[in-house]
Amino acid sequence: MTQTPKRKRDRTATRAALLAAARARFTLLGYDATGVRDIASDAGVDPKLIFRYFGSKERLFEEASRLVEEQSDTDAEDSPAYLPTRLLHATMRQDEDGTAGGHPLTALLLSSSRQECREQLNSQLYDTYVRNFEELVDLPDRELRAELLTAWLLGINVARSIAHTPALSDACVNDITPYFEQVAALLLGTPPSGENSR
Amino acid sequence: MTQTPKRKRDRTATRAALLAAARARFTLLGYDATGVRDIASDAGVDPKLIFRYFGSKERLFEEASRLVEEQSDTDAEDSPAYLPTRLLHATMRQDEDGTAGGHPLTALLLSSSRQECREQLNSQLYDTYVRNFEELVDLPDRELRAELLTAWLLGINVARSIAHTPALSDACVNDITPYFEQVAALLLGTPPSGENSR
Repeated sequence: MTQTPKRKRDRTATRAALLAAARARFTLLGYDATGVRDIASDAGVDPKLIFRYFGSKERLFEEASRLVEEQSDTDAEDSPAYLPTRLLHATMRQDEDGTAGGHPLTALLLSSSRQECREQLNSQLYDTYVRNFEELVDLPDRELRAELLTAWLLGINVARSIAHTPALSDACVNDITPYFEQVAALLLGTPPSGENSR
Repeated sequence: MTQTPKRKRDRTATRAALLAAARARFTLLGYDATGVRDIASDAGVDPKLIFRYFGSKERLFEEASRLVEEQSDTDAEDSPAYLPTRLLHATMRQDEDGTAGGHPLTALLLSSSRQECREQLNSQLYDTYVRNFEELVDLPDRELRAELLTAWLLGINVARSIAHTPALSDACVNDITPYFEQVAALLLGTPPSGENSR
């Protein structure tokens, strides 16, 4: 039976509300300490819908903690030299966007006593950051350099969203960008994007 | 009644065995998923001794996840310019030392769905890293620069001990030191310690 447009819209809205509620809870409490009933209650729907739409708490977690690859706004932002800055901005934007809950990396870290979550963290770091940084490096220690910069993005995220160190928590993306661009240029051996690509 | 030297030695050894077992479990599973019975069993003692020696699971956790300030081996290592390198080495050494279990920061991160653990993480980062780095900076954004370098140490730790990114996990301290010294010099505005202080 074909769904009516109205019903499809409801389903989409409910799914989105459940994902947002799940992300908010998972990024604050991690997997184990979060109950599906609480997520459903935050989203204002019946807990059964979680299983109907996502299959299980595990699948809901996976989807809620997936990093979203953002599209570039302009061609300049698409240039390889601008890539580290673009990834910093995307990471901090997801973190700042209150409506979508906290950052997916935070949810994964808080849940990483579970082996599956450690593996998801490992593969998301590789797909989102390491692989992209590696492509920019034309020097020895390619993997190490890419992982060192990835570790910094990860650490900035942890300091802001879990440890709440004061200056980093208060900083906006423009405060951090100049430092990040200089360190990225140093680690990856690329020209600083601020001077060359914008 | 005065304890006999033998009994004092037993008590010290049991306490140390409990701390090592606690650290190993907490750095793998975090606070909530770790049971005191398992810790006692790993240490080969009665669980009651945990409460006798530490008072509670919370106090045992606090002690097991405290960062140990290391003493410098030489005067050169005491110089302010060498401080970032010394803190990198201390962080990585605790991480590599299998007998003492994993790194305290890992235990705190895996347990940070608990508010107390977030606070302990925040204050340990400040006391061990941020405060020390701040003293080296004589430029604007003093706190931010110190926290950015702290975030990197934190991220390197997470990448190695939780996310297991391959190149960083395989790296030894000498592979990372040159990059760390260059970035520390850039962020803190200090001369690179490799050239000036050793």
